[in-house]
Amino acid sequence: MSKIPVLEIFGPTIQGEGMVVGRKTMFIRTAGCDYRCSWCDSAFTWDGTGKDDIVLMTAEEIWERLYEIGGDCFDHVTISGGNPALLTNLIHFIELAKKKKIQLALETQGSKWQDWFWQIDDLTISPKPPSSGMNTNFTILDDIIERLTEKNNVFSLKVVVFNEADYEYAKLVHKRYPQVPFYLQVGNDDITNGNNEELLQKLLAKYEWLIDITMNTKEMNAVRVLPQLHALVWGNKRGV
Amino acid sequence: MSKIPVLEIFGPTIQGEGMVVGRKTMFIRTAGCDYRCSWCDSAFTWDGTGKDDIVLMTAEEIWERLYEIGGDCFDHVTISGGNPALLTNLIHFIELAKKKKIQLALETQGSKWQDWFWQIDDLTISPKPPSSGMNTNFTILDDIIERLTEKNNVFSLKVVVFNEADYEYAKLVHKRYPQVPFYLQVGNDDITNGNNEELLQKLLAKYEWLIDITMNTKEMNAVRVLPQLHALVWGNKRGV
Ligand code: SF4
Ligand code: SF4
Repeated sequence: MSKIPVLEIFGPTIQGEGMVVGRKTMFIRTAGCDYRCSWCDSAFTWDGTGKDDIVLMTAEEIWERLYEIGGDCFDHVTISGGNPALLTNLIHFIELAKKKKIQLALETQGSKWQDWFWQIDDLTISPKPPSSGMNTNFTILDDIIERLTEKNNVFSLKVVVFNEADYEYAKLVHKRYPQVPFYLQVGNDDITNGNNEELLQKLLAKYEWLIDITMNTKEMNAVRVLPQLHALVWGNKRGV
Repeated sequence: MSKIPVLEIFGPTIQGEGMVVGRKTMFIRTAGCDYRCSWCDSAFTWDGTGKDDIVLMTAEEIWERLYEIGGDCFDHVTISGGNPALLTNLIHFIELAKKKKIQLALETQGSKWQDWFWQIDDLTISPKPPSSGMNTNFTILDDIIERLTEKNNVFSLKVVVFNEADYEYAKLVHKRYPQVPFYLQVGNDDITNGNNEELLQKLLAKYEWLIDITMNTKEMNAVRVLPQLHALVWGNKRGV
């Protein structure tokens, strides 16, 4: 059985972002990303610094570890990265989780399709705005959105916003796929700040800014604007 | 045409709570409540202090006012109270809003049924825990949940938690209606505090407490735990 490169397994905790914000869940973080976002908050998944922490695990081993730390206290698992969509063999874990009646969430930037996307209960496609330094391949993104829409999958788009250019990009994405539930998220450009009180004030000020501009944009009515709840509660701490 | 007692109309702003947390919306607050919760944050809707601010409005007048302040910048309206479920004639506004292609959210404690519940897109039933000083009539609540479930309405349950007894009550409600999406919300028992920084720290500490106990309760897996986002951003300020 092929193995999945895993960097972190933790929980139960709350999902801090997006379409199931607040949901009790376990987290699995896979290694590897095809992007290099300037503000990546999980660069250890791809920049070599986390290399020695990568564990190659079978689907069964991942399940055992989840059960070992989560016990009976979970029914939902979030797969995060890196970009988990690089891993075709994630299907083994997804099918195992389904058998165990576990609901699944997954986030990816939308640079690569996997057939197992159709089996994710809460799928978030999060294309990256200009401040990331990355370019969106809209041919691929169009195709992903079309495949998901065809099968009536429940999924959402999320764009993280750091500045006005990012906001313009978010408007463009929402306009391109108006039928897809759309989330705006405040960017955290202070990912090394260990002063939680200072970080909190900054994040809330940026959240208020994002709310303000969204409220005044008529092209952005059917949207939800959210902070990262885990950053408000725990700052930049990992594994909570 | 019969008139609706309105206390506040404001927005666009974000919905700070519950099933559509973060959603861009306008707010209408109706007057009157059949409850007297000890920690009610809108006691002015029923304790006489807001009496002189009540305006009796037709559905058309409410719509005109919404459009006057919101312009083209909204497609969603939240009806709040007091208990808007006391007002049978709200149907006139609901039908008008539907004609204008506006989505509707509404929150009520679940003490009274209205046939127009079926027409609300995002309906939250929020029965009150022991700390409120109120008693839940479970015969009425059972009936409301049954009627909504029958017609496959999208709706949710939300319980505000101030202490351990409230949490036990929340467990009981979730167990009674396991198929209904369930939200836990941090109570704000500091509703007159004007020191926003102090309030913020208190609310976040209580949120972390509520997350902690929920994570360790196996009867509370399929739940979402949320703060009130507007209280984190704007403190106890009204009309934002
Ligand atoms: S796509 Fe995500 S994991 Fe990859 S570099 Fe960007 S932020 Fe980091
Ligand atoms: S039901 Fe709501 S509006 Fe009525 S007293 Fe209780 S908290 Fe206040």
